Amino acid sequence: MTISIYLSGEIHTGWRDDIIQGCEAAGLDMRFSAPVTDHDASDDCGVRILGGEPDKFWHDNKGARLNAIRTRKGIADADIVVVRFGDRYKQWNAAFDAGMAAALGKSIIVLHGPEHQHALKEVDAAALAVAETPQQVVQILTYVERGTLPG
Amino acid sequence: MTISIYLSGEIHTGWRDDIIQGCEAAGLDMRFSAPVTDHDASDDCGVRILGGEPDKFWHDNKGARLNAIRTRKGIADADIVVVRFGDRYKQWNAAFDAGMAAALGKSIIVLHGPEHQHALKEVDAAALAVAETPQQVVQILTYVERGTLPG
Amino acid sequence: MTISIYLSGEIHTGWRDDIIQGCEAAGLDMRFSAPVTDHDASDDCGVRILGGEPDKFWHDNKGARLNAIRTRKGIADADIVVVRFGDRYKQWNAAFDAGMAAALGKSIIVLHGPEHQHALKEVDAAALAVAETPQQVVQILTYVERGTLPG
Amino acid sequence: MTISIYLSGEIHTGWRDDIIQGCEAAGLDMRFSAPVTDHDASDDCGVRILGGEPDKFWHDNKGARLNAIRTRKGIADADIVVVRFGDRYKQWNAAFDAGMAAALGKSIIVLHGPEHQHALKEVDAAALAVAETPQQVVQILTYVERGTLPG
Amino acid sequence: MTISIYLSGEIHTGWRDDIIQGCEAAGLDMRFSAPVTDHDASDDCGVRILGGEPDKFWHDNKGARLNAIRTRKGIADADIVVVRFGDRYKQWNAAFDAGMAAALGKSIIVLHGPEHQHALKEVDAAALAVAETPQQVVQILTYVERGTLPG
Amino acid sequence: MTISIYLSGEIHTGWRDDIIQGCEAAGLDMRFSAPVTDHDASDDCGVRILGGEPDKFWHDNKGARLNAIRTRKGIADADIVVVRFGDRYKQWNAAFDAGMAAALGKSIIVLHGPEHQHALKEVDAAALAVAETPQQVVQILTYVERGTLPG
Amino acid sequence: MTISIYLSGEIHTGWRDDIIQGCEAAGLDMRFSAPVTDHDASDDCGVRILGGEPDKFWHDNKGARLNAIRTRKGIADADIVVVRFGDRYKQWNAAFDAGMAAALGKSIIVLHGPEHQHALKEVDAAALAVAETPQQVVQILTYVERGTLPG
Amino acid sequence: MTISIYLSGEIHTGWRDDIIQGCEAAGLDMRFSAPVTDHDASDDCGVRILGGEPDKFWHDNKGARLNAIRTRKGIADADIVVVRFGDRYKQWNAAFDAGMAAALGKSIIVLHGPEHQHALKEVDAAALAVAETPQQVVQILTYVERGTLPG
Repeated sequence: MTISIYLSGEIHTGWRDDIIQGCEAAGLDMRFSAPVTDHDASDDCGVRILGGEPDKFWHDNKGARLNAIRTRKGIADADIVVVRFGDRYKQWNAAFDAGMAAALGKSIIVLHGPEHQHALKEVDAAALAVAETPQQVVQILTYVERGTLPG
Repeated sequence: MTISIYLSGEIHTGWRDDIIQGCEAAGLDMRFSAPVTDHDASDDCGVRILGGEPDKFWHDNKGARLNAIRTRKGIADADIVVVRFGDRYKQWNAAFDAGMAAALGKSIIVLHGPEHQHALKEVDAAALAVAETPQQVVQILTYVERGTLPG
Repeated sequence: MTISIYLSGEIHTGWRDDIIQGCEAAGLDMRFSAPVTDHDASDDCGVRILGGEPDKFWHDNKGARLNAIRTRKGIADADIVVVRFGDRYKQWNAAFDAGMAAALGKSIIVLHGPEHQHALKEVDAAALAVAETPQQVVQILTYVERGTLPG
Repeated sequence: MTISIYLSGEIHTGWRDDIIQGCEAAGLDMRFSAPVTDHDASDDCGVRILGGEPDKFWHDNKGARLNAIRTRKGIADADIVVVRFGDRYKQWNAAFDAGMAAALGKSIIVLHGPEHQHALKEVDAAALAVAETPQQVVQILTYVERGTLPG
Repeated sequence: MTISIYLSGEIHTGWRDDIIQGCEAAGLDMRFSAPVTDHDASDDCGVRILGGEPDKFWHDNKGARLNAIRTRKGIADADIVVVRFGDRYKQWNAAFDAGMAAALGKSIIVLHGPEHQHALKEVDAAALAVAETPQQVVQILTYVERGTLPG
Repeated sequence: MTISIYLSGEIHTGWRDDIIQGCEAAGLDMRFSAPVTDHDASDDCGVRILGGEPDKFWHDNKGARLNAIRTRKGIADADIVVVRFGDRYKQWNAAFDAGMAAALGKSIIVLHGPEHQHALKEVDAAALAVAETPQQVVQILTYVERGTLPG
Repeated sequence: MTISIYLSGEIHTGWRDDIIQGCEAAGLDMRFSAPVTDHDASDDCGVRILGGEPDKFWHDNKGARLNAIRTRKGIADADIVVVRFGDRYKQWNAAFDAGMAAALGKSIIVLHGPEHQHALKEVDAAALAVAETPQQVVQILTYVERGTLPG
Repeated sequence: MTISIYLSGEIHTGWRDDIIQGCEAAGLDMRFSAPVTDHDASDDCGVRILGGEPDKFWHDNKGARLNAIRTRKGIADADIVVVRFGDRYKQWNAAFDAGMAAALGKSIIVLHGPEHQHALKEVDAAALAVAETPQQVVQILTYVERGTLPG
């Protein structure tokens, strides 16, 4: 039983690699997908491929639409959506992904530090787990697949 | 043809009243719903009704779940979801509502100032309109119902 | 905004009346439905209408199917499903209704005493509120409709 | 045509192994999934991974949510859900799973002794088969795959 | 709680009137719909409105499609679909309606004499009640609405 | 049984009025909706309300999105979608509406002259009726509601 | 692109083998499923596995429910449902399968002789093709996969 | 993560090959499907397999229905639907496919020259990208799979 996981949210720290490598080290049968994590490519993909826009709104709109092709497939195909909220930026796209995941009936794991607890209460209330570290997410996935707990 | 509209997001300014009164002044056949906008009641509803929690996480969790009863009915019943992002707070719940609305195929109107344009590009890209003022939202709703434009 | 509520579960105490009368006293705009609460009629409806069965299994099966016509409409039409677990009987039908409600995306309120807390943990985990008294349910419904809390 | 089967319910007897081994002995092409059947791990998984809770309700809630990640994928991916009711405990989670399976349109096989017949009449009425032994379940699965009956 | 009922199948006896009048006499809050029961109009509607067809297949096809506009709305809007099999004709359209109703999750009541029992076993197995007389259907609907049984 | 009808397609002839007035004259219980049929308003609504765009693509995009709020509600609420193809313009939006209606399971009536027969074969193949005149549509709707045919 | 096909209906002639062998001879990439075609096993499976029933109704009901496990998976997994109506029996189960397939949006091919044309008009009207011979079905499947027509 | 792509629309130029070969040259993991692109076979498939029709309407209808078997599977299985509008014909089937894809929540890429910009504004408004060349589509697919942009 391969489990499909979409890793949504923050793109400026290595949390995705921590989870993926932790699962590989444990020998789990997980398939991961994620948004494009190259910030510049993600911002400029629309105009680079489809032609420049003088107005920043349309520059961003073109890019956000292209990114949505990948994001929506990732969420639609996932059994579990892990949404990470970090320290920088507004990260409204992460909360937007969580809302989509909730409406689609996906299992949601939210990953954030205690400083965001109050502001994320609606997102956390839609989740099946609220973790603080990638290691906890690996432990959750290990338990979901095998039923074993950390020693 | 009554149109149902859910007014999601910021609760500290009078934008909802501006829209509702504008639509009433125009004689439109709109039915509005919204989250509880009393900030203290919204934060404390869970513990006030179901019993106190020493841990802030569960205090918030109980409240967020109660609020979800109202929020989800509002979104589920809506033809149009207007999502307002203001100047204060993280407002992740607004983006979460927008994600739910998008996954449910609702028509989304986003309402925010130009300072949030880049950070909201994924939310805006899922919308059918991006407005800056409640008056524009009233004009949109007037056009949707009657096909008439501002003079 | 009329809210539709299905009152599932225990049929041997007056908890449904407590909720309905509490909501009426508060002037709320709620529409209630419920299973047939006449225990004998509920057990015998199948054979009374469609003909007797010598085998108890089919006696019960005929009745359970007739009751399902009412139960499923009640759940399907509901915004909120309140599921009450009392002191007597196995009440597997109540848990079954809760599972249906969860899969259909209904808002679930579970109503039970603390003695059932551990045994109901999976049902409670799917709920938006876990209450101990009908009065709390009335307070929840008051808050959901009006945003006001008990004084 | 691989058939996917989720084995829900009682975790204190070897009925799952009886079914799985019976299908293997018959050479059937079935893929099985099940909840975590280690009772202690299942009860404590939430607090062991995500941190302890002084309140038993939240201790259980955290665990039940983690278990739901596995349970819901198992049910969602299944063609057939077998739900076993045994002699001990309230087993409301088994009836809850049956309700989810019914709402999702899964084929349900209920497995229980005659002593539970009346109490399970609503669950049985939603099933395509009601069996008393794991061997009958193996015979059903053999028939579903191959169209052959026990000699 | 108005209950919507679609009366599918045989069009050559007065069973629909028996049910409708029985429900009216009992004061039930039911809303009925049905296919066009004028056999000639039903056969010829397509060519009468949209132009003649020399080939009987297309004559019938045009008519069956027009009738489907009414039939599908009737089934889609129904809480309960009553399907009557009588003594004449193949009545494949009745079984087809039952299949649609089953796939859409409607509550199905089948109405037929004992002579069709074996041939209708698959349809009966998808039903929540199998009745032999319109009076039984009225009794079922009375029970579903009020919880009362025939005296 | 009120029937809801969305009148999609050509906006330069009076076919909508012909159908609506024909149904009113016949006393039918139909509820009609339609896109905005003021060509200039429909083209310019986006920029008139939300601000001008120097690039024609975005000018049109803003308008098409606003119009989609009305169009999608009309189609979503409809039992029947009538799609009219006239003599002028590409009318790709009409075919697009027909595709949406087909995927949503709506009953489709296509209205066009014989000169478009070959080019519309895929759209016609998804329809329950293909008519040439508004009068035929009125006759269809009369038959669907009442089961009566033109004299 | 493997295409999944469910072969529903008549079980007393070799039409399924004709189609399967024709597709194999043509080298098509099709995956077939079908009901149990051993008439006796199909009739008696319920009582043979789950225990005898003195009442023929329940004898048949038990069997029809077991068969539904296989039938519903076959239809649910299919891209195309071929429904064959032959010369014997009422074959209401074939029409029931066709109704389920239609409601689930499956592509339907009906296979029957001209003598059943009028009686099957509603089923045919829901189909994408009406064939008279298994060879035509093989030609259809060849065209669907490869776009080539018989020489 | 294999991505499934349906290539809808114009069948008289080599744009499909340009995209497929471009993706192969880039080593992308894409799976393509498309309608039958042999114009004559597509027009005549119905009558060639199922028998001739003297009336052109039914000749076309039979063919369009057969083609729908392939088209609907292609769209239903796709993650992304690319819709190409060329210079010839009405191409209402392309717009119809786009409408189906939109209603099914598929990611849509529209491919057309600037001369069709105004007429396609409703289709473009439902798309996540509007491209002018097959090379841009290859670049989009490369970005969606790998996150890399053209050099």
